[in-house]
Amino acid sequence: MNKEEMIKDLGKEVFPIGNENIEYAQYFVGDSYLNVLSMEGVIIGNVTFAPGCRNNWHIHHGGGQILLVTGGTGWFQEWGKQPRKLKTGDVVHIPAEVKHWHGAASDSWFAHLAIEVPGDNKSNEWLEKVSDEEYNNLNK
Amino acid sequence: MNKEEMIKDLGKEVFPIGNENIEYAQYFVGDSYLNVLSMEGVIIGNVTFAPGCRNNWHIHHGGGQILLVTGGTGWFQEWGKQPRKLKTGDVVHIPAEVKHWHGAASDSWFAHLAIEVPGDNKSNEWLEKVSDEEYNNLNK
Repeated sequence: MNKEEMIKDLGKEVFPIGNENIEYAQYFVGDSYLNVLSMEGVIIGNVTFAPGCRNNWHIHHGGGQILLVTGGTGWFQEWGKQPRKLKTGDVVHIPAEVKHWHGAASDSWFAHLAIEVPGDNKSNEWLEKVSDEEYNNLNK
Repeated sequence: MNKEEMIKDLGKEVFPIGNENIEYAQYFVGDSYLNVLSMEGVIIGNVTFAPGCRNNWHIHHGGGQILLVTGGTGWFQEWGKQPRKLKTGDVVHIPAEVKHWHGAASDSWFAHLAIEVPGDNKSNEWLEKVSDEEYNNLNK
């Protein structure tokens, strides 16, 4: 990890970056980092994506997720909809049962809080990768 | 508001500061700003305190609150416990039914996200001010 480049893109490291996101690496393209900030009351993670990193298409069952962007530039896309470019301060409400992905821009680190909306029997369904073709088209 | 001083203390404005916190001003000493980032799924507010500003002692009934510090220096204190100095990146779990207050240091702007832990029949009970004597002792 090039921390100097990261801080330049993020503005500052608001929440500690944590460790390499090994547990979910199989569902990501590229390098990401995860720091779980809260496991009680509301589950909150700080997710940091290296440039070019994005997660696979996925669905939150039983309860959605809220993203709060704390630094850098990234993307969010729901299946069948136009991608949305994200910057520091942006808020994304991801409804339950909606297929989507999120991640960094190709030329910027990207950090967001992921806040789990409580629900019964929550689970994540991980699907196909965001292809290089789809992703590269975004960043043109 | 002196925005230049604010940004200097906060490092950067991560989430937009929003408007003067008029609705809750009666429960605060000093000037604060509130920007509600989410009203659905999980209620999330961005609260910014001018130097010296703090909220009154209060209790969250029916569900707690999580604070995520995004900039500056501040304080959190539970009734009968030592005050905790807060800086960017800190996380505070405030349990339901526990009397507490939070706010800025006397010489720094302070910003945190306030994340409401969902619960049934939630309410806030606002109590006495943090006196100048108590507060000035902290900042010595």
